[in-house]
Amino acid sequence: MSIRIGIYGYGNLGKGVELAIGQNSDMTLVGVFTRRDPSSVKTLTGAPVYHVDDAIKMKNDIDVMILCGGSATDLPHQTPELSQYFNVIDSFDTHAKIPVHVENVDKVCKESGKITIVSVGWDPGLFSLARIYAGAVLPNGSDYTFWGRGVSQGHSDAIRRIEGVKNAKQYTVPVPSTLERVRKGENPTLTTREKHTRECYVVAYDGADKERIEKEIKTMPNYFADYDTTVHFISEEELIRDHGGIPHGGVVIRNGKTGMGQMNNHTIEFSLKLDSNPEFTSSVLVCYARAAYRLGKEGVSGCKTVFDIPPVYLSPLDRNELMATLL
Amino acid sequence: MSIRIGIYGYGNLGKGVELAIGQNSDMTLVGVFTRRDPSSVKTLTGAPVYHVDDAIKMKNDIDVMILCGGSATDLPHQTPELSQYFNVIDSFDTHAKIPVHVENVDKVCKESGKITIVSVGWDPGLFSLARIYAGAVLPNGSDYTFWGRGVSQGHSDAIRRIEGVKNAKQYTVPVPSTLERVRKGENPTLTTREKHTRECYVVAYDGADKERIEKEIKTMPNYFADYDTTVHFISEEELIRDHGGIPHGGVVIRNGKTGMGQMNNHTIEFSLKLDSNPEFTSSVLVCYARAAYRLGKEGVSGCKTVFDIPPVYLSPLDRNELMATLL
Repeated sequence: MSIRIGIYGYGNLGKGVELAIGQNSDMTLVGVFTRRDPSSVKTLTGAPVYHVDDAIKMKNDIDVMILCGGSATDLPHQTPELSQYFNVIDSFDTHAKIPVHVENVDKVCKESGKITIVSVGWDPGLFSLARIYAGAVLPNGSDYTFWGRGVSQGHSDAIRRIEGVKNAKQYTVPVPSTLERVRKGENPTLTTREKHTRECYVVAYDGADKERIEKEIKTMPNYFADYDTTVHFISEEELIRDHGGIPHGGVVIRNGKTGMGQMNNHTIEFSLKLDSNPEFTSSVLVCYARAAYRLGKEGVSGCKTVFDIPPVYLSPLDRNELMATLL
Repeated sequence: MSIRIGIYGYGNLGKGVELAIGQNSDMTLVGVFTRRDPSSVKTLTGAPVYHVDDAIKMKNDIDVMILCGGSATDLPHQTPELSQYFNVIDSFDTHAKIPVHVENVDKVCKESGKITIVSVGWDPGLFSLARIYAGAVLPNGSDYTFWGRGVSQGHSDAIRRIEGVKNAKQYTVPVPSTLERVRKGENPTLTTREKHTRECYVVAYDGADKERIEKEIKTMPNYFADYDTTVHFISEEELIRDHGGIPHGGVVIRNGKTGMGQMNNHTIEFSLKLDSNPEFTSSVLVCYARAAYRLGKEGVSGCKTVFDIPPVYLSPLDRNELMATLL
């Protein structure tokens, strides 16, 4: 029997989930739920569109609801709300608030008997897994997470809010020499500036004061002031042609020592190179939806994270096939 | 309460486990079990040594027995045998025979109520995890496993069996240009020869026919004939000085496509660079011993693999701390 999926929120992430479901033959997309007028929304695959107010009525038609809203304002209330009626997957990524989010959702799930897996994606998500496995294997060591080269939506938005800026794209870039030091097994203590640089591609309005814009970007607290930032003014055509995608990626590295006198060094590295950040994140959400469905069938309930899920639940292959082919 | 560990078999792997336990403050080494005369064995840390025949008498003193024997002749009978009395960890690495091994051990565990985790290490083990996660996230893709640069014990032994060879060390090396193609997102079909080369460092006896030795190595079926193999004759001093270690490592790469028309490519890469293969493998065994202990306490029994174990069970940190710091 096919796993029946609902998509709640239809932006880049929701579209990615829609396409990812098409790659998994054990899943069916029941529909997309939107806050907009459903008749105004056309899905990529022709999947039906419903208003979010109609979601609860369809609770018996959907095995897992994948939430595709934002972490700032949507998920903190949507995930607990919907966990009353559905097994839920979300990509809540405000790292500092995860424990509270888990606690809030867990209370609801314990009452409803549903299973919800939160903070699914690549960071939090696959990068978190890299950190927990590597840390457990090499307790005497340090880990490092680098993001990029990739587009930061938040930083791009911050530039766009500056007066005189028409459009902008910001790339977060790991510092190659630092990455090299970590890969060689050094365990340096690193400042923010030593880890990443920020590259900005900015389209200014005609007649805007570019010198002022560049200064405002480079001195912006939290976003840019602590980094070596470069600003390139380009035309709107160039922005669309050369910076239209949403690539991202990064790397988690752990160095650790073992043996007599801790003489042997080991390096564990996990890296991602992604043409489309939202499509990759969606692909992670979809395989955790499979896990939620299967665990739910076994009677498991509560709020879970990627740390709680045995890998065997993620794959469409059955356990015997996995042992024979991938172990 | 400390997790009480026993080590069964005391070669390189057993010594690695002994040292790894010292890095984990929630564990105590009860003792080492050997087939040799215990009075003839000195442990690295002064841990007590017992004869294997005395293991069963100590079943109430040991929470998890870590088996450090070989996959060819030891583990196929030791793991089921000891799973009658102990929670067990083994590193059974004959990939083709894993399903049968799991089945044999599971029968015993179901009767004894013990939990045994088999095929723990890095391949099978962490590399298997890289394959299952990456495959679940990117169903439309291919994965590649490369081993090395590292010492293959089996291939070194095969060279040593040749007449006129005093000593030898063999390195398995991934072909850099092939690795580059895969990293760039190509999905090539690769022959054995295209993936790895074999580098041999050979100490010949005085007067031995080096030409014949080199030819025998390069034409040896299964071991070398299908590879581009280089043979270097060196002195015993050089072998000891430059090739005394047991380094290894490798990389698992999966490329997959997503999106409309499968236009976006994603690359997931997991790599290891290890100064000591047995010490790293031991470190993996030890954190899975923690998982076996905890799952056993919860009443879980049966034969498990790394695919079945939720990552949260591997870390010494508790779940709340993990969510707050690593997720």
